[in-house]
Parts: sequence; C-alpha cells; structure tokens
Amino acid sequence: MAVYTDVGAEDLEAFLADYDVGRLRSFKGIAEGVENSNFLVLTDRAPFILTLYEKRVEPADLPFFLGLMHHLAARGVPCPTPIRARDGESLRDLCGRPAAMVSFLSGVWPRRILPGQCAALGGALAGMHQAGADFSLRRPNNLSVAGWRLLFAGCEARADQVESGLRAELARDLADIAESWPVGLPSGVIHADLFPDNVFFDGETLTGLIDFYFACNDFLVYDLAVCLNAWCFERDLQFNATKARMLLNAYARVRPLSPAEVAAIPLLARGAAVRFLLTRLYDWLNQIEGALVTPKDPREYLAKLRFHRDVRSAAAYGLA
Amino acid sequence: MAVYTDVGAEDLEAFLADYDVGRLRSFKGIAEGVENSNFLVLTDRAPFILTLYEKRVEPADLPFFLGLMHHLAARGVPCPTPIRARDGESLRDLCGRPAAMVSFLSGVWPRRILPGQCAALGGALAGMHQAGADFSLRRPNNLSVAGWRLLFAGCEARADQVESGLRAELARDLADIAESWPVGLPSGVIHADLFPDNVFFDGETLTGLIDFYFACNDFLVYDLAVCLNAWCFERDLQFNATKARMLLNAYARVRPLSPAEVAAIPLLARGAAVRFLLTRLYDWLNQIEGALVTPKDPREYLAKLRFHRDVRSAAAYGLA
Repeated sequence: MAVYTDVGAEDLEAFLADYDVGRLRSFKGIAEGVENSNFLVLTDRAPFILTLYEKRVEPADLPFFLGLMHHLAARGVPCPTPIRARDGESLRDLCGRPAAMVSFLSGVWPRRILPGQCAALGGALAGMHQAGADFSLRRPNNLSVAGWRLLFAGCEARADQVESGLRAELARDLADIAESWPVGLPSGVIHADLFPDNVFFDGETLTGLIDFYFACNDFLVYDLAVCLNAWCFERDLQFNATKARMLLNAYARVRPLSPAEVAAIPLLARGAAVRFLLTRLYDWLNQIEGALVTPKDPREYLAKLRFHRDVRSAAAYGLA
Repeated sequence: MAVYTDVGAEDLEAFLADYDVGRLRSFKGIAEGVENSNFLVLTDRAPFILTLYEKRVEPADLPFFLGLMHHLAARGVPCPTPIRARDGESLRDLCGRPAAMVSFLSGVWPRRILPGQCAALGGALAGMHQAGADFSLRRPNNLSVAGWRLLFAGCEARADQVESGLRAELARDLADIAESWPVGLPSGVIHADLFPDNVFFDGETLTGLIDFYFACNDFLVYDLAVCLNAWCFERDLQFNATKARMLLNAYARVRPLSPAEVAAIPLLARGAAVRFLLTRLYDWLNQIEGALVTPKDPREYLAKLRFHRDVRSAAAYGLA
C-alpha cells in the first residue's frame, strides 16, 4: 500500500504524449498493490490505471502478464486491458521504471463477502480459465511444491516463534502433500492470487478481476483451491460451506470438473493453505524496519490448513 | 502520503446513503496529504474527495476549515466545496473518524514551475483574500512568532546536529524578527501553506487551491511571503526574480498593496522562511521509526532565510 516512485505531472504528460488517450486532467497515487506504484490517471476521455513496476517484479515476466491481460480482455474476461502506445507497445518506461497503463474497471471489493459473490466468482474464474486456454506464453508456478520447500527452508528454524510446534507440523504437511500431489490434471493459465481485494463487484455482479502479477501455468483447479481458502472462511475462521458450495458449483457449471479434479480438491486446498501460510510466515519473520506494508498474520492460514487436513472428500466443500 | 484508516466498501456505501451524490462506482485510497486519510470516490455522477481527519487535526478546527471552503467556493474561489449530506451537514463520521466529502478539482500540480503559473497564483491568492473578507469564523495562526519560539525551544538543543552554528543563527533571527514584526497590516483569512502541491493547473491556468488545513487569520501579505518562499526559488536554491515579480505584481493588480505592506515583505518573507525551517527542523530531529512520511531537509529553508535576511526592500523581489 504505497507509491514507491514519485511521478511528476510533467513526466506523466510527456509519457502520455505517446498514447492516444486524451488530455491529462488529474492523477493521484493510489494506496493499492504491495509490489508496485499505482496511479489513477484521469484524462478528458476516461480513467486509467498506471502501474510502475518496482523491484519485486521480474521485468522478464512483464510480457507474460501484459500479454495475458490483452488476451483475456479480448475474450471478454472483465480484466484490465493494457493500453497500447502509438507504437503498439503497452510496456514502456516512466521515471526509470517499466510502466504500463491499463483500462480502469469500476466496482469495489467486498470486506463482507456475500454468498452470491462467491457464485459470481466461480463463474468468472471458470470463464477466465477457458479464455486462457489458447494463450501462447508460459510462466511456471514458482510458488508450488518445490517453491514451498525453499520458503520453508528459509524460515523453519524460527517457525516456532509464531506457534510452538509449527516447524514439525509444517514439515509433516509438506511431506504429505509432496507425496500425494496430483499429476496430469487439466492445466492452463491460473490467476493464483484471487483474493477478495482483487475482485470488484457492483452488488453481486462481478465487474473486474485485477492484479495478474502472480499468474502462471498450473492445474486449473488449484486456482479454485486458492479461492476456497480466500473466500469461504469467516472472520472467526469458521468454514462457510454455503459459500464453498456456491463457488464450486458455479465454477463447474461453466467448466465441468473431471472426477480426478474433484478428488484432488482437498489436497490442493491444503497445498494452497500451505502456500499462503509460508509466504506470510516468511514475511512475518523477515519484517523490514519501517516498511510501508504491515505483514499479515500467518496463523490465519494455519487454521485453514488444519481444516483442510481433515477433509476426506470434496463433498465436504458442498460440491454436488 | 498514506492512508491511515482502512475504509471498506460496505462502510463507504452506508456513509454515502446519507448523501445525494449518486451510486458508488469505485474508490481508491490516495497517497496525498500528510495528516489525513484521503480517498478518491467515483460515483455514477462525479468524482469526489473523501477525507478522514486523523490525529494531527484538531476536531474543534474542522468547522472553521469546512466553513471556509463553503464560503470561498460560494464566492467563486476554485477550491473544493464540501458536500452537504441530506441533513445539511458536511462534517460527519466514518470508521470512527470525523469525515467530509468535497468536490473534485481537476488539474495537476507543477514540479517545474512556469513563471506564468506564479502570475496565476498571485491573482488567485488575492482573489481568495478578498473572498474571505466576510468570513465570520476565526482561527489564530498558531505558527506565527510565538509559535516559532515554542518550536525553537523544542529543538534548539539539537539544532547544531543539522548544521554547526544553526542554534545561534536561528536565535538571532528569531530575536530580530520578533522585535520588528509589523502591527496593524491588513488581516484576514490566509491559506498559510500554499505550496505547489496545493495548487492545480491545466497548463498555466490555475484550476484549484486545495488543503486549507493550516488556514487561519493573519496578515494577508504574510500568505504572499509564504508563496515567495515556496514558488520563487529554483531547485539549486537560487532566487528567481522573474517568478517573484510575476507573483507579486499579479497579486497587487487584484488587491493593491499598501506602502506598509510592501515595506513589510522582506521581514515577512524572512519570518515565513523561519516558520518552515522550524517545522522541518522539528520533524527532522523527531523522526519516528517506521513513519510513512520522509521528513524534508530543513536546510532548504535555511538557504531561503539567509537570502531574505539580506534583502533591504521589496524592490529586490521585483515589486513594481
């Protein structure tokens, strides 16, 4: 939640001169996005979002992310469309950073999730997976099983500072999950970080999917497992079976799930819980003095992990 | 540059239900304002700025600030207009903070100031002073001579950490200024903080004066002295006599300056330099670990103070 790079009006005006987007009326740095600097830019034609990519984004990945947004938006997925400059490029440079402008999506992200929003999410996620099927670029999921092991190695020695016994508990989960991780499930481009703050709504109507900067290739149903964790637990960490049922069934109505996918959901949900538990644990144990971003409590995902560990079949998630 | 209070979409929707501003389409926390949390709110009718007043603003002062904006906007000053809720009030409550919505002003603030912008500023400042003449509320300037003494007392012991000899130098300036500070100059409501980031332009056309949270009653020409410091020095701290001449003469064309006001400008400019030097010095010496705001270098204003100290008459500023 920060603006890392100071952009002056004169810099922005010179940048916009290479686009056909109208005349600059106003721009504001926005407190959104942990990794990048974002600005809401208003011209006399429309609002846009301008992103300057900061250190934590690998420049080599940017053609994948921007290409994916072009691809999905062209197929009707409600995601930001990168704006091409007059030279046809959407990835340019501003204030010494790689920078891109994308279309503005209206809508707000929910703090108190309605079951109907979970249904809308499920349908939109399945639609995104279908639309991504013929996207030609590839990006591996660096935050899958092998990546979790690296993260765990980097913080296991201090894991018990967060909760006594956490190191041993996580080591067992990692071993279990690695041993049982599925092979051969339908794969494609996944969002991989579809938390509520990345999904905009107007009431229960989904108006936007944003923040594709963790998108990668992996099992499609793993994306659904991420959403189960992020959307279907209440603030007291109780699992909400109604929301899960609506999410999964709405997804399956658009893209039917194979029996192997359905069978894999409990393990994938457990894996997704490990993934966010580990990144949060890592950030928690490696807080930077004076950082602009407050790390999230890893114990939220420990509770979710324990829940999924005891689930024997996808029926527990309400999948019809 | 921060958002201190987390506002959820549901909170904001409930808040907006008390206004006749249309339906919420989107809102973003904006990285603007050191003291408060600010949001750009887009409804299906217009953009607005929503401010939540945080700890550093005295709630008792809010009726003055909001009343002043109402008063000035009604008289054609290009400043934000507070929006009244259906009950007629513009000061309300959101997420446990006093909160107000104001109209959105387009335009951008300049990093590289054009002389024509100084002329536009001078005219707008004089117009604001005239429009404020019949504003009935009053607020003393806590950051005038008596306030500077308090600030100095709070940091003089460590002033030499910033520059050797600074304590003695500032003590002499404060004594000189207090002894010669004028009495009886034309007074009224002043902005008191009209730095470039508080003034919006479309090219050389001034489109907005914002951030009235230091506004108070004082000598009108002191406001001009603040602007001389903030607008008429180059990045290398050289004084730009062309900009000063354009600022002062454009002001005087709208509100003619009396001989006593003209004679007072060098001392008031020196006082204004002391005022910003002292608050920057105080913030520099009292940096908060992990603060969201980086303090500004006080030495910028030390250079300006030294410049004004040697000025004998307003002719040096180009006043015709």
